[in-house]
Amino acid sequence: MVASNKPKAVILLSGGLDSTTVLAIAKSQGYDSYCLSLDYHQRHNVELLAAKRVAAALGAVEHKTVQLDLSLFGGSALTDNAIAVPEHETQGIPVTYVPARNTIMLSLALAWAEVLQARDIFIGVNALDYSGYPDCRTEYVKAFQQMANLATKAAVEGQTITVHAPLIDMTKADIIRAGDALGVDYGLTVSCYQANQQGVACGVCDSCRFRKAGFTQAGVVDPTPYLTTISAK
Amino acid sequence: MVASNKPKAVILLSGGLDSTTVLAIAKSQGYDSYCLSLDYHQRHNVELLAAKRVAAALGAVEHKTVQLDLSLFGGSALTDNAIAVPEHETQGIPVTYVPARNTIMLSLALAWAEVLQARDIFIGVNALDYSGYPDCRTEYVKAFQQMANLATKAAVEGQTITVHAPLIDMTKADIIRAGDALGVDYGLTVSCYQANQQGVACGVCDSCRFRKAGFTQAGVVDPTPYLTTISAK
Repeated sequence: MVASNKPKAVILLSGGLDSTTVLAIAKSQGYDSYCLSLDYHQRHNVELLAAKRVAAALGAVEHKTVQLDLSLFGGSALTDNAIAVPEHETQGIPVTYVPARNTIMLSLALAWAEVLQARDIFIGVNALDYSGYPDCRTEYVKAFQQMANLATKAAVEGQTITVHAPLIDMTKADIIRAGDALGVDYGLTVSCYQANQQGVACGVCDSCRFRKAGFTQAGVVDPTPYLTTISAK
Repeated sequence: MVASNKPKAVILLSGGLDSTTVLAIAKSQGYDSYCLSLDYHQRHNVELLAAKRVAAALGAVEHKTVQLDLSLFGGSALTDNAIAVPEHETQGIPVTYVPARNTIMLSLALAWAEVLQARDIFIGVNALDYSGYPDCRTEYVKAFQQMANLATKAAVEGQTITVHAPLIDMTKADIIRAGDALGVDYGLTVSCYQANQQGVACGVCDSCRFRKAGFTQAGVVDPTPYLTTISAK
C-alpha cells in the first residue's frame, strides 16, 4: 500500500497472534502502518514468513525486517539450541524469555519512528497471559516511553512518542475476540516456539497452550494446524 | 584475558577517545571488562578495528561486535551516504546524530549484562561536548537505567543494573587528562567520522575539531594522524 495523509505508526510485528491483532487495531484507529520485525535468529524463524504475509494482508505501507543475531549473547531457549523449549507449565519466568528483547525491539522502533516522523509505536505485550516476562508489564512500557521522550532529537524538538500496548490488560480470549471482530485471519499467524518450516505448530509449548486455550475460551474456531492435538486446558 | 572473581561490567566501546577512557576507568575501578561494539554500517567503520585494538590493549576479558545495519532506517550522515558530514560548526543537533543509537546500544548492553549476570554497564556519553545529542544527557541515562530495572528477569529478581556515565560532566580536555593519567595510548583510538581505512583522521569534522581542541586544552600531545592540519580553535 502507499502512504496517505494519515498519521504514521510503527508496529512491532512478530507474525504471531498478539502483534497481528495489534496491527489490526492500529489500522482500525486510522494509522498508516509501518511494520517492523526482528530476525534475531530465533528457532521459530517461520514466524518471519508469517509477519510478511500478515503485513501484506493487513495493508501495511511498509514492512522491514531487521537482522540482529541475539544468539551472540545466548541465555534463552529461543536463541540457544542447547536449552530445550519446555512442554509443560513452569513456575516463574520461563527459559523462553529472551534477555532485553522487547527493549531492543522498542529501541529499533524508536529509531525508525524518528526517521519517519511518526509519533506512535505499537507493541503487542500483554500482562495477563504474559508468561511472566518482565518486559510485558504496564510499568515497563511507561518507563520505556519516558526514556524514549528524552532520547531522540524529535522528542527534544517537541514531537513526543507514545508507546501503545492495547493488549496489555486483555486475556488471550479477549485478544482473539477483538481480532476476530476486526476480520483478522489468524490462519496467517504463527505463535509456536518450535513450528516447522510449513508453519505447523507443535501443540505443546507454552505459546501453543495459551493460543489453544484462548480460542476455546473466546468461542472462535482455531485455524491453527497443530502437530500434536492435546486438548486445550 | 581470562575472567576473575572481580565484578563484571559491560563497556560500550566504539574505539573512539571517550569510550576508550571509560574502559580505562572501569578497569581502574576493579571491574572485569566485557566490551561491546556495534557495527551499524557507520561510514567510519575503521573505528571497529580501533575498538579491537583497544580492547586487547586494555585487557578486556571479552569483546563482541554486534552486526546491526542502521542504514536500513537512514536519517543520519553517519549511515546515509547521501547526507554529507559537515566541516564547520552547526547550530542545534547535527546531521551526524544517529536516531536512537545510544538507546539501541544500551539495550544490547543490557541483554549481554543479563546473560553475564553483570550489574554494571558503562557508556562514554558526555553532556558538555556532546554535540547537542539528546541521548548524551544525565536525565536520559537515568531514565534508561530506570527502564532497564523494570525490563529484565535479573532486575525483577533483585539484580539491579547501574548505568555508569563517568564522562557525563567532563570536558574533552578533562577526559584526555583522566585517560592520560591512567596510561591510555590515544594513538590506538579513532574519533573521526570519515577516517580513511588506515585510520587517518580528516581533521575538519565536528569530532576531529573537538578532539584536537581537547588535546590542546589538556596540554597533552595529540598522537592523531590528521589529513588536514587546520589549527585547533
